[in-house]
Amino acid sequence: MATPYRPADALRSPRYAGVRTFARLPLVPEPELGVDAVVLGAPFDTATSFRPGARFGPEAVRSASALLRPWHPTLAVDVFGSSSTADGGDLGVVPGNAEATAARLAEDLGGWLDAGATPVVVGGDHSILLGELRAHAARHGPLALLLLDAHADVWEDHCGERLFGGTVIRRAVEEELIDPQRSLLAGVRGPLYAEADLEAARELGFELITGDELRALGPGEYSQRVLTRTAGAHCFLSFDIDVIDPAFAPGTGTPEVAGLLPHEALPLLRSLAGTSFVGFDLVEVAPPYDGPGQTTAMLAANIVWEMLALRLVSAA
Amino acid sequence: MATPYRPADALRSPRYAGVRTFARLPLVPEPELGVDAVVLGAPFDTATSFRPGARFGPEAVRSASALLRPWHPTLAVDVFGSSSTADGGDLGVVPGNAEATAARLAEDLGGWLDAGATPVVVGGDHSILLGELRAHAARHGPLALLLLDAHADVWEDHCGERLFGGTVIRRAVEEELIDPQRSLLAGVRGPLYAEADLEAARELGFELITGDELRALGPGEYSQRVLTRTAGAHCFLSFDIDVIDPAFAPGTGTPEVAGLLPHEALPLLRSLAGTSFVGFDLVEVAPPYDGPGQTTAMLAANIVWEMLALRLVSAA
Amino acid sequence: MATPYRPADALRSPRYAGVRTFARLPLVPEPELGVDAVVLGAPFDTATSFRPGARFGPEAVRSASALLRPWHPTLAVDVFGSSSTADGGDLGVVPGNAEATAARLAEDLGGWLDAGATPVVVGGDHSILLGELRAHAARHGPLALLLLDAHADVWEDHCGERLFGGTVIRRAVEEELIDPQRSLLAGVRGPLYAEADLEAARELGFELITGDELRALGPGEYSQRVLTRTAGAHCFLSFDIDVIDPAFAPGTGTPEVAGLLPHEALPLLRSLAGTSFVGFDLVEVAPPYDGPGQTTAMLAANIVWEMLALRLVSAA
Amino acid sequence: MATPYRPADALRSPRYAGVRTFARLPLVPEPELGVDAVVLGAPFDTATSFRPGARFGPEAVRSASALLRPWHPTLAVDVFGSSSTADGGDLGVVPGNAEATAARLAEDLGGWLDAGATPVVVGGDHSILLGELRAHAARHGPLALLLLDAHADVWEDHCGERLFGGTVIRRAVEEELIDPQRSLLAGVRGPLYAEADLEAARELGFELITGDELRALGPGEYSQRVLTRTAGAHCFLSFDIDVIDPAFAPGTGTPEVAGLLPHEALPLLRSLAGTSFVGFDLVEVAPPYDGPGQTTAMLAANIVWEMLALRLVSAA
Amino acid sequence: MATPYRPADALRSPRYAGVRTFARLPLVPEPELGVDAVVLGAPFDTATSFRPGARFGPEAVRSASALLRPWHPTLAVDVFGSSSTADGGDLGVVPGNAEATAARLAEDLGGWLDAGATPVVVGGDHSILLGELRAHAARHGPLALLLLDAHADVWEDHCGERLFGGTVIRRAVEEELIDPQRSLLAGVRGPLYAEADLEAARELGFELITGDELRALGPGEYSQRVLTRTAGAHCFLSFDIDVIDPAFAPGTGTPEVAGLLPHEALPLLRSLAGTSFVGFDLVEVAPPYDGPGQTTAMLAANIVWEMLALRLVSAA
Amino acid sequence: MATPYRPADALRSPRYAGVRTFARLPLVPEPELGVDAVVLGAPFDTATSFRPGARFGPEAVRSASALLRPWHPTLAVDVFGSSSTADGGDLGVVPGNAEATAARLAEDLGGWLDAGATPVVVGGDHSILLGELRAHAARHGPLALLLLDAHADVWEDHCGERLFGGTVIRRAVEEELIDPQRSLLAGVRGPLYAEADLEAARELGFELITGDELRALGPGEYSQRVLTRTAGAHCFLSFDIDVIDPAFAPGTGTPEVAGLLPHEALPLLRSLAGTSFVGFDLVEVAPPYDGPGQTTAMLAANIVWEMLALRLVSAA
Repeated sequence: MATPYRPADALRSPRYAGVRTFARLPLVPEPELGVDAVVLGAPFDTATSFRPGARFGPEAVRSASALLRPWHPTLAVDVFGSSSTADGGDLGVVPGNAEATAARLAEDLGGWLDAGATPVVVGGDHSILLGELRAHAARHGPLALLLLDAHADVWEDHCGERLFGGTVIRRAVEEELIDPQRSLLAGVRGPLYAEADLEAARELGFELITGDELRALGPGEYSQRVLTRTAGAHCFLSFDIDVIDPAFAPGTGTPEVAGLLPHEALPLLRSLAGTSFVGFDLVEVAPPYDGPGQTTAMLAANIVWEMLALRLVSAA
Repeated sequence: MATPYRPADALRSPRYAGVRTFARLPLVPEPELGVDAVVLGAPFDTATSFRPGARFGPEAVRSASALLRPWHPTLAVDVFGSSSTADGGDLGVVPGNAEATAARLAEDLGGWLDAGATPVVVGGDHSILLGELRAHAARHGPLALLLLDAHADVWEDHCGERLFGGTVIRRAVEEELIDPQRSLLAGVRGPLYAEADLEAARELGFELITGDELRALGPGEYSQRVLTRTAGAHCFLSFDIDVIDPAFAPGTGTPEVAGLLPHEALPLLRSLAGTSFVGFDLVEVAPPYDGPGQTTAMLAANIVWEMLALRLVSAA
Repeated sequence: MATPYRPADALRSPRYAGVRTFARLPLVPEPELGVDAVVLGAPFDTATSFRPGARFGPEAVRSASALLRPWHPTLAVDVFGSSSTADGGDLGVVPGNAEATAARLAEDLGGWLDAGATPVVVGGDHSILLGELRAHAARHGPLALLLLDAHADVWEDHCGERLFGGTVIRRAVEEELIDPQRSLLAGVRGPLYAEADLEAARELGFELITGDELRALGPGEYSQRVLTRTAGAHCFLSFDIDVIDPAFAPGTGTPEVAGLLPHEALPLLRSLAGTSFVGFDLVEVAPPYDGPGQTTAMLAANIVWEMLALRLVSAA
Repeated sequence: MATPYRPADALRSPRYAGVRTFARLPLVPEPELGVDAVVLGAPFDTATSFRPGARFGPEAVRSASALLRPWHPTLAVDVFGSSSTADGGDLGVVPGNAEATAARLAEDLGGWLDAGATPVVVGGDHSILLGELRAHAARHGPLALLLLDAHADVWEDHCGERLFGGTVIRRAVEEELIDPQRSLLAGVRGPLYAEADLEAARELGFELITGDELRALGPGEYSQRVLTRTAGAHCFLSFDIDVIDPAFAPGTGTPEVAGLLPHEALPLLRSLAGTSFVGFDLVEVAPPYDGPGQTTAMLAANIVWEMLALRLVSAA
Repeated sequence: MATPYRPADALRSPRYAGVRTFARLPLVPEPELGVDAVVLGAPFDTATSFRPGARFGPEAVRSASALLRPWHPTLAVDVFGSSSTADGGDLGVVPGNAEATAARLAEDLGGWLDAGATPVVVGGDHSILLGELRAHAARHGPLALLLLDAHADVWEDHCGERLFGGTVIRRAVEEELIDPQRSLLAGVRGPLYAEADLEAARELGFELITGDELRALGPGEYSQRVLTRTAGAHCFLSFDIDVIDPAFAPGTGTPEVAGLLPHEALPLLRSLAGTSFVGFDLVEVAPPYDGPGQTTAMLAANIVWEMLALRLVSAA
Repeated sequence: MATPYRPADALRSPRYAGVRTFARLPLVPEPELGVDAVVLGAPFDTATSFRPGARFGPEAVRSASALLRPWHPTLAVDVFGSSSTADGGDLGVVPGNAEATAARLAEDLGGWLDAGATPVVVGGDHSILLGELRAHAARHGPLALLLLDAHADVWEDHCGERLFGGTVIRRAVEEELIDPQRSLLAGVRGPLYAEADLEAARELGFELITGDELRALGPGEYSQRVLTRTAGAHCFLSFDIDVIDPAFAPGTGTPEVAGLLPHEALPLLRSLAGTSFVGFDLVEVAPPYDGPGQTTAMLAANIVWEMLALRLVSAA
């Protein structure tokens, strides 16, 4: 690859022009050497426990990403200018079969990892995380997982199904893809099934921070906790859009009231500058439940963009 | 049961009052003797090939059914007055697992069949048909299937999955739940994967009538063909809402342009008076894609109501 | 009034410019001599039996009317060019009180009648008809009513309330505002409460034509029936938007499937050229249930425009 | 009643399955001994002063409540586990007649009170409060009213009608159903008709706290004020969803900008633990104005759930 | 190009997977030899006279085209199988400047023409036709234009602007890009500005067929007229989605009631098999006004697909 | 003018009655002496860089303004009671031509300025500001501009067009309509094209306050900065609705995540009491992207109302 991949120039064509790749980046449908970062879709929603639709999440996030621009004024980085970034299209999925999908995702994502790209995967429901973690762990060993999510996703099963959006973290522990002792689950809120729900995550070894605690901590203390917990480990950041308040992110499968404001979530993300990230995902955007203003998709596109920026200031 | 189950009286409470059972009928959550007809939901959409959301189909159809009234002026029957009709709630499903769902549906529906009720099941995606047919065939042997659908649903598999919305008819033939020689698939239209697509259904033994042919036939000839084909058999009517034109039924998973108008579909249904029906379903209503006027759900509720009327004038 | 009132010139300002009066006509908030035709709103929906929202009907119809142009190619008349037409604003209503509203409407509309204008009133639910008919009958005696509606609106009462959308025709008969022997109710369709429902209208003296019959008659025979029935009488045309199929008019309170297509309704209206109309209304547009394309409001605006055209070719 | 009424088990059937009762509780359509708490609908919106639609509020809140779970992590109570809770269906209403509705509501609600259940009523517009208060006051004498609302609802009349959403508090004072000296109206904000508007409430004897003041007070001081004001009295909590900011609760009849965030409102509610509540309502959810994500209904369902939790920690 | 470009295989990845190119065809952003047909976007809506939004038309049509399949059962052709078809991305546009856009479009489209591809351009408002015709006429001389449109688009100017959606046909005549004597404008309907409106098109030399006449003619007579009129000429087919009825195509800029049903429009298109087409466009899809079911975009995608099929059976 | 213009009386007619002028004020379509303040529309969106639709902004803001009431409890002024306020309809625009529109706007607005009215103009995209400033500067010389906007709008050009939403501030400087040394641009946020973007505004002489800085400053310090910067100058306040967070104002053309909450923006506005304002505008409301609750339009109507209140407490 002679020329780094960059977004189309908004001074030459309006931002709504062209096929909807992420941030109007070139479409590179197969893994290719020289790509520093790649945005990939995982259009799968078989394993969502309430409202489906996240299969259209990648399309919606790509559409909304047309408005992104390269310069990040807070982190002071040119998100696209200093590296080669591509839209890698969608990873393989098997509709109706979460387990087969995990296998396909792991295989396809592995190709990009082997080509040296840092991936940001756009879901899809949260079950896609299992395939991603398999790909990463096969190359790095168990990862430190940073989860921002309204739900801890550590149920045993869902109506008898073992791989589901709400069980994926437990499955990842069982497969030793992540190291709970180095991982933090943050943002959990809302009614629970039982008093023991939060304990279940802690019993698995995770540090668990509720949504109210997270808001109280703020970026400074949160990043300090992350630093302490993960130090030296390869980190994976998984962002479930439902950690955000439904007024800002209505387009999701299992919303909970009184979530993080974007004004809180973005500084939390930016506080992770310096963390050694090997991969990222953004999940559970369900476009049929977004409003005509497509605010959920737009926020999600910005979070993917923040992840691309974090890669540039990552210690990995 | 001393008193037959009837809808709430619209002269005493407005039609938008009360919990949304179908047509404001009593909720009878377990099979019960003395119920002549029962409306049941099958909230499952794991096996839909494009837009999900049919898991909310039963809710939307129940909501829209509040507007129904008892007297059918064309068939000249009192749909609710001359028998006992209940809303039986929803049948059991296993989200994310079409095969396990088929087993649960067959078992739960069997309970109602054994109690002597004629069921009308509201889907859900079309894969629910397999469980329904298992329950009926276990009691009656292979059925004559009357399908009204934009798609023949006889694919071999879908991305490797064998039980899917688009494969269910083939699976039912393989399990000998239906007798293709006595069955008609009508209403197929739109672009096809290959010239052979329509032949595939005929090779399985079905009579296949395309949408254009169906419109040309009209109710008189269609019912004549049905009579000839099914004579003497136990019949099951499966109505996929996508046989209707998307302007009238946008809320569905795989719409095709230029479908039947309700003005065509309702007379076709009514022309089946006298057929020996043992069961019915109405599938693929996907509420997130319906407009604010909820026209799809309203039309679907009317079709369920037509099915209840057909039961009254059935030869079964 | 020196200059006749005309719409704003679309060659000088785009049609979306300006305050939303009907067809961009001048706003004349009080009755004024020299106005030939006046469009008036009746923003009232207390008496709607299912979905409310018709109080915003006048606003929505005015908004959609911006697209109208003056020349009627079928009737070959310049709808605005040959007379003075105004938007008279809204008639007085009393929210929450249908009877008090009828009184206010009758009084306010009477002012316009005394000023010599032919009114077209945009509802609002169908109960507004009572006040309108009082105003007209006070000046002309009992009228011949031409109703196009999915429902005959001749119930005795609605949950104990005597003046409601569904009872207004019976009330008008009781008050001798209309002469049933000279009136036709056309377009009734859908499930009924009882076999006797249609007979109720006939027992009051009306000629009743169902929706299916109306479609079969077509414009030629329908207008012939109207001519025979109404000959010599002062006629009032009341058009309930729910006579139209819900795909074309989802934004209404009590939709019924399989209604008239606009392709059928508009010729029926135009076939009434030559009838002696003294007034018109268009009711039951409920904007919250219209889609983002506002097709219901747009169709309603066209029907009001057809009424203004009918006035020009009226024998009255 | 042998077994306490509990929600359906989400481990056995997905939360979107079954007829939409509140939180998937059993439907108990008539008052029954042994029910500790009952959720009831009041589908009435004749008396709303701007956007109608609250008649569909109970349906929407029931639909959104499917996502609720039993454990309240902040109050540390099992909302459903420690008592018997039912969905009692809808109370009687008389569409188009607010006064007759108040009488029906009082009678029907009285039946549940006599059976010993604590009711949470889901409106409907705010006029339903009058009937509720009549039922409670008939059994307890004048109540202490805690109102959270963007409007004080103490107008004299609305276009001549005396019982309306905006007049209901004044009517309740006149009927001596509430004791203003023990009541607080909190959350009022937005443009007013006149400088004296707020004084009107104070002249009736109420303590009035504006929205800005309420936000400044916070839960600690608010609950202290409530304690001081109501001490010893039987309390009724009425929550008008429009006290919440329109970004979080767009689906309401008379929204005002810059309202409470849910992050503020929920702690305020929880601060009322220990108050002696005899009843609750949640009013003015107008589903046609909610977005596709149904955030208003979801928030409202959570507030009803908070009320059920408050009952468990009530001193009553 | 060794391998012809074909859509992604729906048996290997679900149709909602991947970046949204038209029909999941390969994206070929620059003109390339060996491409038989190319779908191109023209995301421009500066020149729309009522509702804007057509700049998002190409995105919406691409999104909806995911459902297309290759076999055309009526024309009996494999639309994608027998030739190489690509998505060429979007042509250059200059937002806010219709004249500069025409120049850019002509230049960019010319590149594809020179590479030997037959283009189908997706608008964008109708003003884009001028640039297209310039590119074609530069290579073929004046074309025979077949227009299907609710409006004749032959105004002199629009509020002083000479190149607008409603003036583009007149401009094309003035520039001698089309030969009116060999062209037909069909489908015009709705209110007109003046009696002379239709004459204006005829005075320019066009054959003009109103919507009512077109419906009466049917496919047989329409195609006969086309054959007679165009015989021997290079033809261009321009399809304005507003020729379709708003119930089927609400998402457009200037809808008119009572348009063609898709059941009428598709046979009209198919009747043109054998015509010598050199190019096609589909314009005026305005996604913000489409419903959640996206029926307009889906119909538009089907019409583009019909155009690709017509190319295969074209005499050109 | 004998009687001052006031809104219609909400005690006599419900707020949803009547033609939608701003706040139900009288419509005064031509400049008239004695009008103290006038609300005017500028329905133009040719120069918007992403989502169009702002041409319908004036209609939507007028519609939502029906809910406004006269008394401002924070500023303690009767917004309508102490002066004569009118809705002046829409200013002239030339669709498709931003430069011609600027000329028309300047001319039409000048008429109102000469009549002595303080105008509040409702856009329309931000390019309308140029015409407004021309009218004001012709009478007062260069103005102090207070801008609240997510974007600084100082680009050199947009795809070659010099007058666009994103370039208008630079054009105004070049024409010496504003004095950058006395102007503040506040609220800028989101991804930028380049690090130098913010410097560009400062190089033109503006004081630039980013969104984060603005939130940190709060009303007290912001107003102090305004006072210092503008002292003695004639001020113009331009409020781009996209300075507000998209959850509260989704209906706009180029939203950016994490904007001002209304709870922050309204106090900022009110802190400007005492500033010498000669004019105001509110731009970029794009109704097709607003939700069904119309929260953007409602917030915008409130901001216009705040501007009318600011006029009353202005030092001008």
